[in-house]
Amino acid sequence: MMSIDSAIMAMAQAARAAAKDVARCSANQKNATLLELARQIEENTSLIKTANQKDLVRAEQMGLSGAMLDRLTIKESTLKSMAAGLREVARRDDPVGTLSPTWTRPNGLQVSRMRIPLGVIGIIYESRPNVTVDAAGLCLKAGNAVILRGGSEAFESNQALAAIIAQALQVNGLPAQAVQMIPLRDRAAVTALLNQEELIDLIIPRGGEGLIRFVVENSKIPVLKHYKGVCHIYVDAHADLGMAEKICFNAKVQRPGVCNAMETLLVHQSVAGDFLPAMALSFAEAGVEIRGCPQTCRIVPAAQKAEESDWPAEYLDLVLAIKVVAHMEEAISHIVRYGSNHTEAIVTRDYERARRFIREVDSSVVLVNASTRFNDGGELGLGAEIGISTSKLHAFGPMGVEELTTTKFVVLGDGQIRT
Amino acid sequence: MMSIDSAIMAMAQAARAAAKDVARCSANQKNATLLELARQIEENTSLIKTANQKDLVRAEQMGLSGAMLDRLTIKESTLKSMAAGLREVARRDDPVGTLSPTWTRPNGLQVSRMRIPLGVIGIIYESRPNVTVDAAGLCLKAGNAVILRGGSEAFESNQALAAIIAQALQVNGLPAQAVQMIPLRDRAAVTALLNQEELIDLIIPRGGEGLIRFVVENSKIPVLKHYKGVCHIYVDAHADLGMAEKICFNAKVQRPGVCNAMETLLVHQSVAGDFLPAMALSFAEAGVEIRGCPQTCRIVPAAQKAEESDWPAEYLDLVLAIKVVAHMEEAISHIVRYGSNHTEAIVTRDYERARRFIREVDSSVVLVNASTRFNDGGELGLGAEIGISTSKLHAFGPMGVEELTTTKFVVLGDGQIRT
Repeated sequence: MMSIDSAIMAMAQAARAAAKDVARCSANQKNATLLELARQIEENTSLIKTANQKDLVRAEQMGLSGAMLDRLTIKESTLKSMAAGLREVARRDDPVGTLSPTWTRPNGLQVSRMRIPLGVIGIIYESRPNVTVDAAGLCLKAGNAVILRGGSEAFESNQALAAIIAQALQVNGLPAQAVQMIPLRDRAAVTALLNQEELIDLIIPRGGEGLIRFVVENSKIPVLKHYKGVCHIYVDAHADLGMAEKICFNAKVQRPGVCNAMETLLVHQSVAGDFLPAMALSFAEAGVEIRGCPQTCRIVPAAQKAEESDWPAEYLDLVLAIKVVAHMEEAISHIVRYGSNHTEAIVTRDYERARRFIREVDSSVVLVNASTRFNDGGELGLGAEIGISTSKLHAFGPMGVEELTTTKFVVLGDGQIRT
Repeated sequence: MMSIDSAIMAMAQAARAAAKDVARCSANQKNATLLELARQIEENTSLIKTANQKDLVRAEQMGLSGAMLDRLTIKESTLKSMAAGLREVARRDDPVGTLSPTWTRPNGLQVSRMRIPLGVIGIIYESRPNVTVDAAGLCLKAGNAVILRGGSEAFESNQALAAIIAQALQVNGLPAQAVQMIPLRDRAAVTALLNQEELIDLIIPRGGEGLIRFVVENSKIPVLKHYKGVCHIYVDAHADLGMAEKICFNAKVQRPGVCNAMETLLVHQSVAGDFLPAMALSFAEAGVEIRGCPQTCRIVPAAQKAEESDWPAEYLDLVLAIKVVAHMEEAISHIVRYGSNHTEAIVTRDYERARRFIREVDSSVVLVNASTRFNDGGELGLGAEIGISTSKLHAFGPMGVEELTTTKFVVLGDGQIRT
C-alpha cells in the first residue's frame, strides 16, 4: 500500500501535468466545462443527496452540533446556488493571456505583462461542501489545476461532487486530474500536501482560526489567508445619525455569523448622547447584546461592561462591543490596536475626515457611508470569490478569478543586445 | 543584557511604529530624504571607506577569495552608483495613494483600489554593501519601514552606511527606525527576524541558494525570492542566424556571473549544422567552455560531452550547455524540466512560433529576438529593482518600487446597506 506521503505526491505530480493543459485551453473550452458541470449538478441531485445523507448520519452519530449539521446539509437550494455560481463564473471575462498596455524602451524593446495562471493551487477547508464546487470553478476559470481537501465530516458529499467534476472535465476534453479531491480522512494528508513546494504554487485555507494557523505553521508553500474579521464602524461627530443607525444595524444584524459583520462600534463623544440611545433600542429589539465602555454604559444602562477581551473579539453572533471615543485619532488607534485589517467603515458628512479615514486605515476594504457587509467579491463586482485575504502579499481583500493568476513579462525585440 | 530574540523583537516593534509615519509622509518628503542621502553618501566617502577597510582586513585574515573581496570592496565608483541610484528612485512617480479606475455598482457604491505600502519589510543579504543603500531607498520610496540584515563580512561598512541613512531620515523629519540595520553578527538574529510574523509583512532574501533555502524553511513571514537563473535561448529553425549569434554571445559573455546570463542554448536540428560551428568559434575566442549533447559534439568537435548534471546547472561562469532539439516542443519540454522560471528567449522570424513560445513558456520574462540579459528592472523600465522573483505569488520577475506595495479597496457610499 502507498504511504500517505507518496499518494499525495502522486496527486501533486498529476495536478502539475494537468495544469499545463488547463493553462493552454481556450476560454470557450473552460466555459463549456463550467456550464456542463452546472448541468451535471442539477441532474445528479439524488446521487449527491444520498452521499450527503451518509455524512449527516455519521455526523449525528458523532454528536455534531445543530449549526454544524446545518452547514453540512446539501439542500435543493444549495445545489441551485452551486450551479448558478458556476454559470456566473462562466459569464465573466477570461483573464488568462490578457496583455497590459505595452511600453517601449529607448532601444526599441516593447514590454508588456501577460496574465497567466498560477499553476497548481491547494485548498484546505472545513465542513461546507459548496466550497468544493465554487473553488473548482474559480480555479478552472483562472487556468489552474487544484487539489481539494474538504472536511472529513463532508467526506462522502465531497467524493460525489468530485466524481461529477471529473466527468464534466473529461466530457470537455480536459484531464480529470485538473480537479482532484484528496480521498483520505487522515490529517497527515494535509501535512503531506503542505510539503509539496516544488509542485504546488499556492495554498488557500478556509475555515476556523485553528485550521488556518495549522496551515500557516506547517506550509512550505505560500499561503493566502484571513484569520478573522474584527470589523469596526466609526460614527463621526459629523455623521448623518439616521444613516449611521441604518448602516450599523445592517452591519451587525443582517448576518451576524460572517466575517464582514461589525464587531465593534466606535462613536464620537459629541454625538454619543444623541446616537446611542435610539441605536441601542434597535439593537435590543433585534436581540443584540451590548458590551460597552464606561461612557457607553452610562448612556445605555442595559449595556454590560466590556472587558479588555471584548475589543479584539470576533463574536460572529448577536453581540456588539461599543466604545465612545474623544476624536477620530482615538478611533483609528483603536482600530490599529484591535482590528484585523479586514473591513472598516466611517459614517461622516465631513470631506476631510472621510479622506483621512480612507488614507490612514489599513484594512483590505475601507468604506465611507456604507455597511461593512459589502466586503464580498460579488458585492464589489469581482464575481464569485474564493475568500478574503487579510495579508497584504499578492491579494488584499476579496479574491476573485484574477487573484488566482499572476503576470509574466513579455519582451518583443529585433535583435537587441545589452551593452 | 537583552537576548537576541528580544532585541530583534524590539527592532521589529520600532519598525512597525515607524512604518505608520513613512506610510503617511508625502512624496516630497520621501524624495527629499532620498536626495539628502545621496548627498551624504558623496560627502562621507572617507568615513565609509574607513569602515569598509576594516571589513576588508578582517576578510583577508579569514582567507576570503579574491572574488569575494572584490564584491565587498566599496570603490569611488560604488559610492557614485549608490548616489545615482537614489536620485533615480527619487525621480520616479510615487505609487503610494494612487487610485485605480473607479467602477460603480448597481446600488451606486463607487469602488476603486488604492495603492498602499506593505508595512515592514525584512531584507537578508550577503556580501555586497550597495544592497544596503539600494534596498533602503526602494523601501522608503514605497512607504515602508525596513529591517536590514547584511552579510557579516560587510558588518562595518553596513553600520557606517546605516548611520548615514539614519541621519538623512532625521534631517527630513522621518524616524530613524524607518531603516534599521541589525547590529549583530550572530545568525540567530536571522531566525529571530523570521519569527516576527505579527510585525513584519515580507521577507526578501538576496544571495546564494543556501541562504535563500534557509530563509524559506525558517520563515513564518511570506518570502519573495529567486533561487537561481537557469536561462535558455532557443534558436528556431526560422531564426535569423546572424541575429541569433549576436544575441547568444551577449547573453553568455557580456556578464557571465549574473542570474540573467544564458546557461543553456537549445538549437533546432535543421539549423544546428549552419549555426553552431560559427557560434562555437565566437565562444571559443571569448574563452567559453562548451558542454554539448551528442549531436552538438559531432558538429563542434571541441565541445565536451554534457552530463545530466549540466542541464539544470547555473554555471555563473564562461561555461555553456548546448543541446540540439528536434522541434520547438522538445525545446519547451527541456525548459519546463530543467529551467528555473527565470528568463527564456526565442530567436525566430516565424510569427506563430513566437506567439506559441510566449504563451507556453512559463518564465518571469519571456523574450523574442532579444538577449536574456534584459531581465532587469532598470532595463525593462521599472527603475531600480530589489531583486527578481521566480515565484509567482505577488510578484513574478523584476521587482521595483510598485512590487513593494499592495492595494486596498476603497468604497464610497451614500448610506448603502446590504439586503
